[in-house]
Amino acid sequence: MSKQGADTLPFVRPDVRAMSGYVPGEQPKGDRIIKLNTNENPYPPSPRALQAMTDAASDALRLYPDPMAGDLCERAAQLYGLEPDQVLAGNGSDEILMMILRACVGAGDRVVYPVPTYSLYETLVSICGGVVENVPFGDDFVLPVDALAALRGRVTFVCNPNAPSGTVTQLETLRALAPRLDGLLVVDEAYGDFGSVCATELIAEFPNVVVVRSFSKSFSLAGLRVGLGFGRAAVMRELLKVKDSYNLNRASIAAATAALEDIDWMRANVEKIRLTRERLRGALADLGYSSLPSETNFVLARRHGENQRAVYDALRQRGILVRYFATPELSDALRITVGTDEEIDALLAALKDICG
Amino acid sequence: MSKQGADTLPFVRPDVRAMSGYVPGEQPKGDRIIKLNTNENPYPPSPRALQAMTDAASDALRLYPDPMAGDLCERAAQLYGLEPDQVLAGNGSDEILMMILRACVGAGDRVVYPVPTYSLYETLVSICGGVVENVPFGDDFVLPVDALAALRGRVTFVCNPNAPSGTVTQLETLRALAPRLDGLLVVDEAYGDFGSVCATELIAEFPNVVVVRSFSKSFSLAGLRVGLGFGRAAVMRELLKVKDSYNLNRASIAAATAALEDIDWMRANVEKIRLTRERLRGALADLGYSSLPSETNFVLARRHGENQRAVYDALRQRGILVRYFATPELSDALRITVGTDEEIDALLAALKDICG
Repeated sequence: MSKQGADTLPFVRPDVRAMSGYVPGEQPKGDRIIKLNTNENPYPPSPRALQAMTDAASDALRLYPDPMAGDLCERAAQLYGLEPDQVLAGNGSDEILMMILRACVGAGDRVVYPVPTYSLYETLVSICGGVVENVPFGDDFVLPVDALAALRGRVTFVCNPNAPSGTVTQLETLRALAPRLDGLLVVDEAYGDFGSVCATELIAEFPNVVVVRSFSKSFSLAGLRVGLGFGRAAVMRELLKVKDSYNLNRASIAAATAALEDIDWMRANVEKIRLTRERLRGALADLGYSSLPSETNFVLARRHGENQRAVYDALRQRGILVRYFATPELSDALRITVGTDEEIDALLAALKDICG
Repeated sequence: MSKQGADTLPFVRPDVRAMSGYVPGEQPKGDRIIKLNTNENPYPPSPRALQAMTDAASDALRLYPDPMAGDLCERAAQLYGLEPDQVLAGNGSDEILMMILRACVGAGDRVVYPVPTYSLYETLVSICGGVVENVPFGDDFVLPVDALAALRGRVTFVCNPNAPSGTVTQLETLRALAPRLDGLLVVDEAYGDFGSVCATELIAEFPNVVVVRSFSKSFSLAGLRVGLGFGRAAVMRELLKVKDSYNLNRASIAAATAALEDIDWMRANVEKIRLTRERLRGALADLGYSSLPSETNFVLARRHGENQRAVYDALRQRGILVRYFATPELSDALRITVGTDEEIDALLAALKDICG
């Protein structure tokens, strides 16, 4: 019975039957793995966030959570200089991306973004029946503004800083792009805290800008699934209509709110990661890997034209997981999450051994 | 700026602009309210669930959760006599309903269900661009099998036991309906633990049956947002394609798994609620309210033809929240969640005072 194929499921949409689905990065069990493959933060979350979650483990769990995550949105609004009705919370920033597409993209509507970038965008657009139009980044990962604007997407994504390149587009470039679009410009700042650019000030300037942020990376809360969306109140109201009615639970609301109240903890971890990142880039260069300047918690290490599958496998055999992309444009690269100094030392020793 | 209307948002889908969005039941702040309006469980969740959530408030939150919630699905499969690949977990059963619609319903596809029932179905179908076809339940809330089958929905929902009536459709009736549908039959058993019917055995018999369950009511975990979907593995695989990549967080996976391991705690609470429910129904009859037999944790109390808005308001003034529906078919009814015996005593005293 369990063997029945999808071809005998006439009630499933044909485009879903044809989809393969998003494959999340590997999450191995066991403590001995050095996990540098999914851009998690190597440092723990704020003790205040952990305490808030512990406090939330109470009889009050019998009650529904606040469907608007009001405390969290208010705290975030203060922090980013916005009004609470310009903020919405999601079950991870992935859910905010999905809400944006649900609200804006119907069958055949066009969604535009430069590639390579976060591969989930394609999955989400497929689910909504939209059509993806890509513009290739060049080797320098400079945003192809003219080409993006010319494609007139219902939604245009700019992952900034970009994954997997780690590179950043400056605010002035986004400021030039926004008014050239009829559609929505979504600036996905999942890695924003590791860099120097924050596009929230564009919200006051343009009605078609939404900024998305995540607690998964800089706040060390990937396990709790919290993201934020920022935009004009009128836009947020439309997104709320397509939100799951109670999308965040009491644990994530409590912990994320507490994490924002202990912003210095996050910033100290980010600073450590930045220092390790620069050390990693230097050491990679000594090993013959080039990398573009990164404003994230990872480095895209490249040997132009040399497929890195064997290096990936060899690292894996030594218990070190990094990210390899089996696509032609990226097969000569490894994406390496910036771990602790000890983890990065182990990675570099292994790489030296493998490549040396 | 925040005042800008949705009519100036050309990137939002016209059908979303026209939507009003789902309005969750009121969640008042303050402890002095007797809250009988959103069908929460008056008793606390299992201490083992609370302990598991506390244990999850650790440094491991920096890591992503298991995207498949494997531990939870395995435990649920054991409990319901299914295989793990016949189970999927959602961020509340609402998310499972949404996954089903995302996977099956495109623009113009028909979704069929009897009314009145769970009002979220309509919102979710709208989001997917589907078309709702309703069949009215009669006053007796017997499932209109022929009319449902004749409408040939891509998806047919049966909320069983039904909200807000509390009534149940027997398994034999569902067994007769399933093979008459080309589309998917979704049996929404959010309240199933309070009743006598569980449709999971139909999964072995029919390829087009999915059963949905919730931790929000019987397990007293509304605050954690966990639901389960059961169906053939081939169907579950299609639903997984449209799932948010990490839809449950570490808190909810841990607590829900522990709650299943302490199933007797849930069953004891359900038994208390059943006893209180029957006492409530008897006392309501003495006050002139009729109610159909309920297999849920609420009672739909009715005075035929007499609008209950004033009673609702008077209860509210006394600090007692129940659910009033401002629709013609239900305006002569109040939906009353079965609280503790003390809460129900307070409700009955207030009703006596108001109606006496």
